[in-house]
Amino acid sequence: MSFTTTATIASFGGKLLKLTHKATSTNCDMALNLYLPPQAAKSGTKVPVLFYLSGLTCTGDNCAEKGFFQHGASEKGIAVVYPDTSPRGLKIEGEDEGWDFGTGAGFYVDATKDPWSKGYKMYSYITEELPKVLFSSFDQLDSSKVSITGHSMGGHGALTLFLKNPGMYKSVSAFAPIANPINCPWGQKAFKGYFGEDQQAKWADHDATELVKKWEGPLNLLIDVGTGDNFYKQKQLLPENFIEAAKEAGNDSGVTLRMQPDYDHSYFFMASFADDHVAHAAKYLFA
Amino acid sequence: MSFTTTATIASFGGKLLKLTHKATSTNCDMALNLYLPPQAAKSGTKVPVLFYLSGLTCTGDNCAEKGFFQHGASEKGIAVVYPDTSPRGLKIEGEDEGWDFGTGAGFYVDATKDPWSKGYKMYSYITEELPKVLFSSFDQLDSSKVSITGHSMGGHGALTLFLKNPGMYKSVSAFAPIANPINCPWGQKAFKGYFGEDQQAKWADHDATELVKKWEGPLNLLIDVGTGDNFYKQKQLLPENFIEAAKEAGNDSGVTLRMQPDYDHSYFFMASFADDHVAHAAKYLFA
Repeated sequence: MSFTTTATIASFGGKLLKLTHKATSTNCDMALNLYLPPQAAKSGTKVPVLFYLSGLTCTGDNCAEKGFFQHGASEKGIAVVYPDTSPRGLKIEGEDEGWDFGTGAGFYVDATKDPWSKGYKMYSYITEELPKVLFSSFDQLDSSKVSITGHSMGGHGALTLFLKNPGMYKSVSAFAPIANPINCPWGQKAFKGYFGEDQQAKWADHDATELVKKWEGPLNLLIDVGTGDNFYKQKQLLPENFIEAAKEAGNDSGVTLRMQPDYDHSYFFMASFADDHVAHAAKYLFA
Repeated sequence: MSFTTTATIASFGGKLLKLTHKATSTNCDMALNLYLPPQAAKSGTKVPVLFYLSGLTCTGDNCAEKGFFQHGASEKGIAVVYPDTSPRGLKIEGEDEGWDFGTGAGFYVDATKDPWSKGYKMYSYITEELPKVLFSSFDQLDSSKVSITGHSMGGHGALTLFLKNPGMYKSVSAFAPIANPINCPWGQKAFKGYFGEDQQAKWADHDATELVKKWEGPLNLLIDVGTGDNFYKQKQLLPENFIEAAKEAGNDSGVTLRMQPDYDHSYFFMASFADDHVAHAAKYLFA
């Protein structure tokens, strides 16, 4: 159940660990990156943890290389976890047919529809199995101080995992999140595949815009979206729907949506504002 | 002769331009990235320029995505040029046989040996043709304020181009440079191929350790090398030879070699110290 460390890489004064472990929820070996900031090297010190959930097609490597989170995390003393986006190699028919469903596109849900229910359990993996193995393997991580962020499909993941688990995460933020998946082509394809077309309650239960309507209290949520983001223009993200729902439910207090001029959907966008999202998490992790 | 802009990407408040142009020195189309910091957007403003020379196998894309020079360059108001590392597609026999010679491995020299002399002229390209086209195409760039840096083979490039052209660059720095190519396998293979085995004077004329012996005055040079760098351990870099030669020639004043504990040869290493190298350049560019 514990990790195999396949590489230890010096980064911004800390260490980026490349880890693999046999996961039961996803029924396969899972790879991830864990950044331990320099503060974690001091004996007896525990550091807070920021989960970063990646977008479609990505692994935990992309953001560790191109997202620039280590820069801020090193300064603030926060560990960053970069998990993978789906199980891999389950040999389910159709798994590798599209880039927006199956491999690299787990959507942070527990699939209930056969054959995907055999391992596409990224919700359980991220909220239960992975934290359990992490906190039992790394004494340096403070299990009582955890925040979450993510990009695109991972922004959807961050928002829904936060909203579905009050108290589990100290704060949430998102880059270009798929904020209302039941009303966009990406989300509809994924939820149809993982839950079935007739499971509307399940769909709503993993839709941030639906979930925020039931949230009580302030959200303290930061969302960045680029105005040059083609997926935003194609209405895959729909952040305005989320903001509108939060307002209607009276929960918009502390929700900040920043429309960043000209920025696209890429890691260049995220790198430019990664420091802000780490600072946002730090505000609540060190409160 | 001018550039085609294939993409404009928002990055750290500025713009990363993906450019291509037909180059005469290298006898082919050349691609590069140009980062214009936010300060360059103000009408009438001219910003200094930092050339970043990449290492073996890389294009101008790798460091633009993973090196995080844009972070410091945005803050200081410096443009960054990320050229390619060789001509491409010249159809010279053997061009793509190895990763350390030919394509992706131009070594910033003008080859004199046939058939490489047909286009492997990266020295002329970087010191003459490219700056000419850049400064005539982009009014925002200050041609009187130029510095240079680079990584590995590009660190060799930065050191030798600086040392061979007094006054052309305001400052120089390098990450894990091939500092004494005539005494390491990479350099020997490249110089044998591009110049011929019997051209020892040519070899010495492109060896930073040989060149520094003739340099007069202070160097104001920053070099970072990771102690976990396998190429350093394999004696491909030999930075100590350079430092020793500078000392013997009385030119070590202002030469700083920092051995960074545990860092490897990767972009994780560069990203960790990119801000320092931009600050080093800024000190001389804004002097």
